This record gives sequence, C-alpha cells and structure tokens, in this order.
Amino acid sequence: MRNLTMLMDYYELTMSNGYFKKGYKDRIAVFDMFYRNNPDNGGFVVSAGLEQLIEYIQNLSFNDDDIEYLRKKGEFSEDFLEYLKNFKFTGNIDAVPEGTIVYPNTPLVTVTAPVIEAQLLETMLLLTINFQSLIATKASRICRAAGDTGAIVMEFGARRAHGADAATLGARAAYIGGAAATATVLADEMFGVPAIGTMAHSWVQFFDNEYEAFKAYAEVYPDNCVLLIDTFDILKSGLVNAIKVAKEVLEPMGKRLKGVRIDSGDLAYFSKKIRKQLDANGMEDCNVVVSNSVDEYLIRSLNKQGARINSYGVGERMITSKSDPVFGGVYKLVAVKDGKDGEYVPKIKISENVEKITNPGKKRLWRIFSKETGYGLADLITLNDEEVKGDEPFAYVDPKKPWKKMKFENVDVKELQVPIFKDGELVYNKPELKDIKAYVADQLKNKVWEEEQRYENPHIHYVDLSKKLYDTKVKMLEDNQQ
Amino acid sequence: MRNLTMLMDYYELTMSNGYFKKGYKDRIAVFDMFYRNNPDNGGFVVSAGLEQLIEYIQNLSFNDDDIEYLRKKGEFSEDFLEYLKNFKFTGNIDAVPEGTIVYPNTPLVTVTAPVIEAQLLETMLLLTINFQSLIATKASRICRAAGDTGAIVMEFGARRAHGADAATLGARAAYIGGAAATATVLADEMFGVPAIGTMAHSWVQFFDNEYEAFKAYAEVYPDNCVLLIDTFDILKSGLVNAIKVAKEVLEPMGKRLKGVRIDSGDLAYFSKKIRKQLDANGMEDCNVVVSNSVDEYLIRSLNKQGARINSYGVGERMITSKSDPVFGGVYKLVAVKDGKDGEYVPKIKISENVEKITNPGKKRLWRIFSKETGYGLADLITLNDEEVKGDEPFAYVDPKKPWKKMKFENVDVKELQVPIFKDGELVYNKPELKDIKAYVADQLKNKVWEEEQRYENPHIHYVDLSKKLYDTKVKMLEDNQQ
Repeated sequence: MRNLTMLMDYYELTMSNGYFKKGYKDRIAVFDMFYRNNPDNGGFVVSAGLEQLIEYIQNLSFNDDDIEYLRKKGEFSEDFLEYLKNFKFTGNIDAVPEGTIVYPNTPLVTVTAPVIEAQLLETMLLLTINFQSLIATKASRICRAAGDTGAIVMEFGARRAHGADAATLGARAAYIGGAAATATVLADEMFGVPAIGTMAHSWVQFFDNEYEAFKAYAEVYPDNCVLLIDTFDILKSGLVNAIKVAKEVLEPMGKRLKGVRIDSGDLAYFSKKIRKQLDANGMEDCNVVVSNSVDEYLIRSLNKQGARINSYGVGERMITSKSDPVFGGVYKLVAVKDGKDGEYVPKIKISENVEKITNPGKKRLWRIFSKETGYGLADLITLNDEEVKGDEPFAYVDPKKPWKKMKFENVDVKELQVPIFKDGELVYNKPELKDIKAYVADQLKNKVWEEEQRYENPHIHYVDLSKKLYDTKVKMLEDNQQ
Repeated sequence: MRNLTMLMDYYELTMSNGYFKKGYKDRIAVFDMFYRNNPDNGGFVVSAGLEQLIEYIQNLSFNDDDIEYLRKKGEFSEDFLEYLKNFKFTGNIDAVPEGTIVYPNTPLVTVTAPVIEAQLLETMLLLTINFQSLIATKASRICRAAGDTGAIVMEFGARRAHGADAATLGARAAYIGGAAATATVLADEMFGVPAIGTMAHSWVQFFDNEYEAFKAYAEVYPDNCVLLIDTFDILKSGLVNAIKVAKEVLEPMGKRLKGVRIDSGDLAYFSKKIRKQLDANGMEDCNVVVSNSVDEYLIRSLNKQGARINSYGVGERMITSKSDPVFGGVYKLVAVKDGKDGEYVPKIKISENVEKITNPGKKRLWRIFSKETGYGLADLITLNDEEVKGDEPFAYVDPKKPWKKMKFENVDVKELQVPIFKDGELVYNKPELKDIKAYVADQLKNKVWEEEQRYENPHIHYVDLSKKLYDTKVKMLEDNQQ
C-alpha cells in the first residue's frame, strides 16, 4: 500500500506546528467535508472514494526521510517533528457510505479529532472524495443516457486520465456510477472492475491488408471477436471485410462475430448503415460498438437520431469529466471542543460570497423519505444532540424561505452518516465494489425522483436545517456584525 | 518505485497475444506519439513527462500475481504468459527533451521495437506525456498572464487534482511551465518543487477571534507571516487585524508582515483597497496574495482593471486545466520492418475525419530557426534517411499549400528528438528539473515568436513535410482508393 502521508498542503504543517507550539495539540476539533454545486448543473452527486480514504488513514505515518525533509525546511520545531514521528490518527470519522446519492451543503464526511490530526488529513480527504465522486457522478449521467436505449457503457479513458491514479480510481468510480466494464487492466487487478478490449488501429495497420488483420484476430479469438472497422473506409472496406471474416472464418467454426467498432465518422449515420448491413447478412446478434469523444450530451443526440448502438466506449469525456472537471468539495472547521470534556463550541466562516458561509456546529445528517412512494423528500441537517424520528413532528427551516413554519410528520427517516473510525480504530465493514454499484442503481430506481435525474433544470433537492441549527447560525451571523 | 506495468488497456494484451501466436513476436514496429490540437486554442504545447516515462520503462515487469490474474482471464496462451514473465523492453525510444516547445502533428516520442514491446507501452506512454504536457502548457499560459505585471504564480491545486499522481506530477508540470512554487509537500519531497504555505481559514476560526489567530501565527512564524484576511470581513476585520499584528507583534521584534491573502470577494476591488491601506501604513513591502478560481483569463481581466496583486495561488483551474482538461496525444503505428534487416515499410491510418490521417513512415523531426532573429520559423518532418543541413537548400511541402515549391536555405537547423533508449538501455542523461524549467523560459524568451504566444488567434506554427515524405503519403492515399 502506498503511503501518501506527505501528500498534503504545506499549510497543514505550518498550522499544525503552530497549534503544537501554542499548546493546542489535544484540543478536539470538528471538520465537515461538503460541496457546494452539483457538476454539470445536475440534480445530485454519487459519492465515492471512501474506501481509499480509509486506506490512506490506516497507512498514515511519517518516515525518517519525511522528518528529515521537514527538518531542512527550517520552520518546524524539534518537538513537533518528534510528535510527527509517532503520529497516528486517534479520532472519529463519520461518513456517508460510498454510492450514496448526495446533495450540496450536506456533510459527507465529519472528522472529530485532536486539531492537528484533523488538519493534516485535509488535502487527501478532499482529493480522494472529490475525484471519485466527480467521476462516479459523470459516469451515472453518461450511463443513464445510454441506458435509455438499452446500450451499455465501457470506460476507455486511461490514456487521457490525469495520471495513473486517475486511470485506476477513475475506472473504479465509473463502475460505481454505472459503467459495465473498463479497458484498464490494473483497475481489474486492483479493484475487480471487469477489464475488456480487443484491437486498436495498429493491429489492422500491422498486417498487409484489413482482411488479413481481421482473419488473424478471428482465428486467435473466435469466441470474443470485435473488429475495428474504420482504419481505411468504414462501409466500403471495414464492414465488408468484417462480414467476410464472419462468414469465412467464424461461421465454419460454429462461431459468431460478436461486434464491430467504429472510432470516427458520423456515429448516427454509420451505426444505422452498419446495423442494416449486418441484419441483411443474418448477423442480428453482432453488436455495434462506438467510441470517439462520447459523453451524455452526444449520446442523447444519438438517441434522438435513432442511432443503432449497442455499446459505447467512453474515454476522455468521462475520465476527466471534461464538461465540468472540478469537484469543489471543501473541508471546514465547524466546532472546537471547549476543554477535554466540554461542549462543542460552534465555529463559522463568513464570506463576501454568501454561498460560502458555512453551517456551524457538530451536526447530523438525515434523509426524509415519503412513506407512500419511498422517494427521498429532503435532507435535514440537525445539531449533534437532536434526534429525528419519522413518527414524531419535527420542526425545520428551509433556509431559502426561513419565514415559513415547517414540520416533518409521518415520514421515514434515515441517518446518512455512519461511523467509520472510532478512537482511531476502523469500525466499518467496507462493502464489496459490486454492492456499492448495486446500491447506486437501487437508489436511482427506487429512492430518487425522476425529476432530480433530469439533465436540464433538475428539481433542486431540499436541504433543510433543524430550527435549532438555523437559530444558532443566525445568532452567530448577527453577533459577528456587532 | 511503483510498478505500473499493468496500467494498460486490455487490448494491448489481446493484440500482443495475437502477434505472439501469429509468429510476429520479433517483427520491429515503429510508433509515433503526437497530438492534434493545442489546448485552449493556444499556439504551442510545453512538452513534459519524459522523466516519468523513462522510470516506467525501466520498471516494466510482470510479477507472479499479474501473470496469475491474466491466466484467469482465459484468453491468453501459456507460452505468451511465459514470454511476459521474462518481459523487458529491448527497443529504441527517441523523444523531444522535456520542456521543448512543440506543435501539433509532430512526433514527440518515437518507439522502434519488437511489435509487442512497442504495443504494451502505449497506454502509460500516452497517459504520462499527455497529462504533464497539459498542465505544463496551462501553467505557462497562466504564468505568462501573471508575469505581465510582475506577479508570480503558486500551484495550490492538490485537493481538486484527479488523484494523488495528478497532485504531485501536476505540481511538477506546473513548475516546468512557470509556477514558482507549490502547496503540495510531496511534490517538493519527490521532485524538489519548492513547497510553501501558511494558514487556512480553519486557523483563523479555531481561535477566539481573528486578532488572536493572527497574533499567534505571527509569534510562531515572525519571518514568514502571510495572514489570510477574509474569514469574517476583509476590510473591516481582516485587514485591520493584520495591520495591527504587524505593528504590535512583528515590528517590535524587528520583523515585517510578509503578506496578506484573500480567497474570496472581488479580487480587483479588494486588492486595490488593500494595497492602499498597506501603503498608508508604511507597509509597501507587504505582498497581496490572492486565490479563488484564478486562471489566465481572470488574471488578464484583473491586469486590465489595474488590480494590485503580487502573487497568485492557482488551484483547480490549473491542476485540472479546467477550460480544456483533455490533452489528446495519440500513439500510431507508422512503419513495420520488413524482416529482420529489411526496410521500414510505411503504414498509414486513413479516416473519415481528414485530420486523423497519419503521417506514414519512420521519420525525423527538425526545427528551422531564422539565422537573423534566432526564432523558430517552422518544424520540418522528414523520412528517416533524409538529412537537413541549414546551409544547403532543402525542398519541403506545406501540406496546406502543396502546390507551392518551397525551400529552406541559409537557416539554422536543430534535430528535436534525441535518443532516450537504445536496445533497451537508457542512453540519456536526465536533466535537473530546474534546468527543464529554465529551458522553457529561455525558449519563450528567445526562440518562440510573440505572435505564437498570443491568447487569441495565435500564429499557427508551420509544420512542413519533406518532399519525399509528402510524396510517400500521397501515394499511399491514392493506392488505398483503388
């Protein structure tokens, strides 16, 4: 397991050394990780990355080289460096399970720990959750668009990924979000995302002609033969040779051509032409596979045009979330414990940008479901000492309409964060990857309104505050003005 | 060193197993890596990533777990798996040195090796060069914009990077492209990119009030005190407290406040207000540092508005190249050696999309410089057996105006690719990172026309073909039509 302890912003260390020198080493702080906007103006995010966050925290430790590097920077005291040598995470982490459908401004991860420990986690916590949530969300968008016509999506992006981790973890996140498979072998070996693939243009070019190339491939892989037919001319050459190989090489062996792939040209036009030719040759079971700069926008356009596509290879636009490549998760101090056994004193960040004002205090996150339909009606954030029960009325505030008196009554309620680390020990059973994927699919089918799954102007999920939390926040804002 | 051998597209393995079974294991193939479009419609790319490509190739090897994983896929023959067990790269690689300013459709890396070896490299070669070239190029754009007013750029993007590699290698690439420093500690420890940082909002929130937070920081770091002044109210609170701490805490110690930072609000307005206040208090040496979704477009707008900014912390928009997050480098078969000692037979990929037609053959890449100004006039691609000398006339074709008869005469010529691996051995002395950075800066100052460095409609650098290469390509296209 790679140790990524030193992958942090330098200011985590200057602040930690400062807390240490000022005697705050054991002061308990509470940080929330949340995000402010759904990528691509969508209605939700598919949260992902928790498993890698857990591994990172279990592997946290500074080795001698790290300490020596830090010593040479000349800014850190020897007793702080000694503290780092023995560093271990001893706090609590609560988080929403991977694959949970989540919404802006709700705490996805909450860290309650001695302030230095909580601070030093910041960069990797954000990086890990941000990236995989971004890709899982994008994959969900693309796969839902493809699914409208029963097509499946394969993740093909490694070569355009932002580094090796982006390739492997991106394939993992895409699988969570709905992709059926990946081209990236290491993602299969590491995480069990099924790896698939057949040939590139180079195979076709290598041989003396296209027919020889297809024939050679069919002979080696009669059971899994997908031919790339756009190296020279799709209709005049590629498709003709593919059908010829199906008839002359595969069918005499009792095998069928599994698919043809195109990676260029007008995908709507060619897919229809190809389908027609294949069907005319009794090859209704031969799949049409397309790639080339595909995303949910292109797929929806292809759907409208009646394209005949069975499967999409989606590369750069999914693995980079090209149309919106930044997932802006943040990690904010929300409370500090007053002494060792004291109260959690809420903390707030005020900003010129109103949407950057934080929700103060140690909090809990709940989802409210309709008893009738099972769909999620709203998320509700309360302070830590509040309990929400579906069968008892619970007063809440919609922060966009704070003057309205609102109550949840006769609803189903689920607390979304679960304990992950308790006093530094892992207390969470990590689910299997395939179960995370199934959890996403189940929520989208049974728990999330179709209106929130729209691509244009989706319904904005309600994120409400308990009356007590709302009053706390308003009082802090008022006090700050004095 | 991490072994990333298994980070490849699955089709590299199915093709390789196919070449193996069909008896082509020792056939020498030539692949070119090139790209088609400059990101952000810019005039050029800053190439980067070669050092990591070298390390990857030196570490190539399949371990027992890898072989066992592949065996279980059920598609690969035992003799092929045995071949992989002993796999080692034995071929040649030529490439442009890191930091070279490069242009579309020119071969940046050329691999000449037994076809399986050349094929298996594809994914990581692309991933490595694509990502770092993308970020080095984006950084160059951002740093040039900041440099117009003498400001510097610090790379702050780890938390929004696409995984851990993107954070560290992105910081390395940003440094090559012109960034002065990074926030990412591991990028300093691994590559020597200077890591810097001071405080986050959490530091300010942690204390009972902003003044106490600033005072504590100044006491711990009197020599390197940059205060973040936008946690509550920039002008009424943050700046007032910063000046107070400068006067009451630092100046009595004979120290100066090094800087103030804002991470929200109207950067043009506030930077001018802050500058004025600082100057009025005799703090002309106190820097104004800004962050918050900065890129070259915002910086150029701030420059126009007369913003008074000394340094930019640039995060998500540089580390993801947000406005254009995909660098589309490709890796194409261009020749196959006919038998062991035979000729290189050129190979071409034709496409419905004309810009996807490749330049066939084993080739060489040259840059033509004006003797008078020293600036690069054009790039020239020739076949492998051609030699270009600046003092002898050399006939070439501009592929956009093939009817014109053109000659280079009385120019300086430099061959751009240099040998990296020869018969599998590294024959290249890797330069120091700071020298790569200096090489970029020197080219932009002395070798690249200002017109190519424009942001809007930059001059399109000429990429010409030798007469012989052009004729070869045209003949292959004509032959294909018959």
